[in-house]
Amino acid sequence: MPDLTVARYDVFEHTITAKVDGNPYLDVEFWGVFKHANRTIRVPGFYDGEGVFKVRLMPDIEGEWSLTTESDVAALNDQTANFTVTAARQGVHGPVSVRNKFHFGYADGTPYLPFGTTCYVWTHQTQELQAQTLKTLETAGFNKMRMCVFPKHYPYNENEPELHVYESKGDGTQDFDKPVFDAFRHFEKQVAALGDLGIEADIIIFHPYDRWGYADMSPEQDYRYLRYLVARLAAYRNVWWSLANEYDFLLNTKPMEMWDRFFQILEENDPYRHLKSIHQGNPELLYNHRRPWVDHVCIQHPDVQRTVNWRTDFGKPLVNDELQYEGDIIQTWGNITAEEVVHRFWLTMLKGGYAGHGETYSREDDVLWWAKGGVLHGQSPKRIAFMREIFEEDAKNGLTPFEEIYHSGYPWSSIAAARDGEVSYFYFGAHRPVIWSTGLPLEDGDYELDIIDTWNMTITPAKKVAAPVSVPTRHGDVVRGGEPDAAFGVELPGKPNLALRVRLRR
Amino acid sequence: MPDLTVARYDVFEHTITAKVDGNPYLDVEFWGVFKHANRTIRVPGFYDGEGVFKVRLMPDIEGEWSLTTESDVAALNDQTANFTVTAARQGVHGPVSVRNKFHFGYADGTPYLPFGTTCYVWTHQTQELQAQTLKTLETAGFNKMRMCVFPKHYPYNENEPELHVYESKGDGTQDFDKPVFDAFRHFEKQVAALGDLGIEADIIIFHPYDRWGYADMSPEQDYRYLRYLVARLAAYRNVWWSLANEYDFLLNTKPMEMWDRFFQILEENDPYRHLKSIHQGNPELLYNHRRPWVDHVCIQHPDVQRTVNWRTDFGKPLVNDELQYEGDIIQTWGNITAEEVVHRFWLTMLKGGYAGHGETYSREDDVLWWAKGGVLHGQSPKRIAFMREIFEEDAKNGLTPFEEIYHSGYPWSSIAAARDGEVSYFYFGAHRPVIWSTGLPLEDGDYELDIIDTWNMTITPAKKVAAPVSVPTRHGDVVRGGEPDAAFGVELPGKPNLALRVRLRR
Repeated sequence: MPDLTVARYDVFEHTITAKVDGNPYLDVEFWGVFKHANRTIRVPGFYDGEGVFKVRLMPDIEGEWSLTTESDVAALNDQTANFTVTAARQGVHGPVSVRNKFHFGYADGTPYLPFGTTCYVWTHQTQELQAQTLKTLETAGFNKMRMCVFPKHYPYNENEPELHVYESKGDGTQDFDKPVFDAFRHFEKQVAALGDLGIEADIIIFHPYDRWGYADMSPEQDYRYLRYLVARLAAYRNVWWSLANEYDFLLNTKPMEMWDRFFQILEENDPYRHLKSIHQGNPELLYNHRRPWVDHVCIQHPDVQRTVNWRTDFGKPLVNDELQYEGDIIQTWGNITAEEVVHRFWLTMLKGGYAGHGETYSREDDVLWWAKGGVLHGQSPKRIAFMREIFEEDAKNGLTPFEEIYHSGYPWSSIAAARDGEVSYFYFGAHRPVIWSTGLPLEDGDYELDIIDTWNMTITPAKKVAAPVSVPTRHGDVVRGGEPDAAFGVELPGKPNLALRVRLRR
Repeated sequence: MPDLTVARYDVFEHTITAKVDGNPYLDVEFWGVFKHANRTIRVPGFYDGEGVFKVRLMPDIEGEWSLTTESDVAALNDQTANFTVTAARQGVHGPVSVRNKFHFGYADGTPYLPFGTTCYVWTHQTQELQAQTLKTLETAGFNKMRMCVFPKHYPYNENEPELHVYESKGDGTQDFDKPVFDAFRHFEKQVAALGDLGIEADIIIFHPYDRWGYADMSPEQDYRYLRYLVARLAAYRNVWWSLANEYDFLLNTKPMEMWDRFFQILEENDPYRHLKSIHQGNPELLYNHRRPWVDHVCIQHPDVQRTVNWRTDFGKPLVNDELQYEGDIIQTWGNITAEEVVHRFWLTMLKGGYAGHGETYSREDDVLWWAKGGVLHGQSPKRIAFMREIFEEDAKNGLTPFEEIYHSGYPWSSIAAARDGEVSYFYFGAHRPVIWSTGLPLEDGDYELDIIDTWNMTITPAKKVAAPVSVPTRHGDVVRGGEPDAAFGVELPGKPNLALRVRLRR
């Protein structure tokens, strides 16, 4: 037996070739029992076609590991392997999970701040286009990708996929008992490629944009598909599970109790507890993300002012993956300006959530980034990347919006502000006071004060000035605006879309 | 007796000089009974100082009128006068009242669309500044003014008024049993001056910005002041009653039952039923405008997307008088850009409400338009005037937002749209589709299609194009976006802050 090694958080894979009659996708149960010292992890294996069975592990600790397989099929039972897990490769931080209630972090302790984008069916396009998408992502600055397993039928998405996920019956529909193994292998290759770029793959398991029957599989086929997907993909450290895009438009064939069961299947089969969520369509009918099997809130909503309320209501990290997209198509969710996208990103972040990007510029060739990838044409991505750098620079425990820190809602319903440790951020949007002091430190000190132009991407030192003198504003009032007086103020240039960063000099 | 004449909707005034002992402001009841044919209107008279008593009428119909006075004071009882009411002067349309549930109209049937501004205490500034304010208003394009009876103490408002409303006790407080008649005469002169400019005077009766004791008058003094104000001012056709600015910050001295009583005193004393409302401070604690004595909803709120919901909830015309002001002061309600003001005006209007303006640019001399008047420095007023022209051109019954016309909320939660008769308006804000068809007519016809650039103030014919072909968007969907397909589309230039007007060619 060769001396097998795998780096921590990479994929260990064990393969067994065995001749099994019938349809092993339907009939064969096969497990791998991995051991490290006294610890045991039992993970589902899967059939990969042509007599090949596989079981995978993402080891989370260095040292000596062993594998023993379990199956009712003799050839798949009691097979063993031993391997050594070495240190994680440079830049590999492990899977992302929830940290500090409203935030995320990698397994190695590095904070993870999602700045995601969306290319729903990029893995179903031509090889050339997929290569171009990966090349774009190398430098675009995004660290999460929403992507579907199934192909997509929708405006601007009328092409056939390169590979269907299940075998074609030849009449435009598929046989959902017969996976196309090449399709799954290809999908996981692209998930791995994203992992190599430091990008989390937010995998959309079901969706309603369908002409081939994927949305009409039987419950049994749905459950089997889900178990199979988890068995194949859970060992990839960058996997997130998004049960559906716009799950509410699938309720006609998949009632609410099925969604509960889907979440449970993820829990039963994924030993790593990758992040699980679900995405809704109707902005007024959010999924009840308080349910215990939901790890973080995924939301589609343009009114990002409500971010702090959603966060409070659900008590979990919040990602608004569709605050509407930069573009110019007729669909209203896909035609806002880059300026508005950047504005909504800053608002969302400083109200304690995280925002997601998408791009929908109409094109003769129907290659819109949001669905197919390719290249980016918009003006928001570089501003989002600039923003990501700013927040990663001082990320510690995650942002707490001022609405949660102060008793008074004013002025924080208009000026978005948040704090992480000793660093505070203010985002003024359409507000452009020429002096600001509310929410600044109550005691003077050696603060770095920086004006961030969120659109022009500049960071300029702010001038410290005396805090404006309080004048009672109303009958009976003793303090201005309900906030205690700050020790000082800052001068601002009277322009919109500015942010202010206040941090103790280190 | 001279042959008295007064034009319809102007003020008829009858004066009696009589020596009355004591304090006639407190002690004398005095009424005028006006008759036209078999119709009788009984209106309160008032004491105007130095033995002068007056009673006023705004006659609403042409013809012969008579007056007989009533009082327990003999000299004020059974006095008579006759007068002739002639046709209304050119440009005089009478008082404004509610029309078509959510809208306003003048007594002569002309639609009235409020495009108001705010100079809270302009009548308390120097004569020069007041003259300048009126001169500015001649061409500014506003047709409503929010203004306080009492002077104001607040940041940027630390000067003493030219005249106090009650006699000074010499210790910084006033004797609220002794009116300064010159102050009231001056106030009504300025109300009349606004009327001559076609501007409604939205008179703010109480407010909490006080250092002189106005906010601490006894209930008896409050009630008497209110009756006196109505007796003096109700005959001015352009009067609106705003019980308070930020009434909720006065609840410590004036509990809720007093506000009910204030409304009732207006009802009991104002024979013309001028529009009555009340303005709140806390954006989350709106006054219950469903109460029967409220004519229209006055609101202070930056989240103008909610306009259609407020309108539905209260079932009355809605005026958002403070959607935040153009300016650059530290107070968040007073530092938004002109662009944002114009944006919120369009949103408010196309969601079935009306918007109000204010301007708060910080100045060395503390002369901010919002409080003191003077000249306008901002960029929003001319865009608001441009907008007013557009909507007055086709005003008929008032706008109904598409949310109330169509069953589907999409896309009307993002694209504001409304219809008045056969004219439809769409406002795209940060959305800039290059083709639009949703909500356009279902049958083709000879439509004028105009693109309105709300910021650059241009109106350009739009190119009619084929409506985009429907592709089912989702599993089970038959129509795109839940709306029936329009007969045609329009090409748009891909810029933000555009509006589209669709009207049948006349």
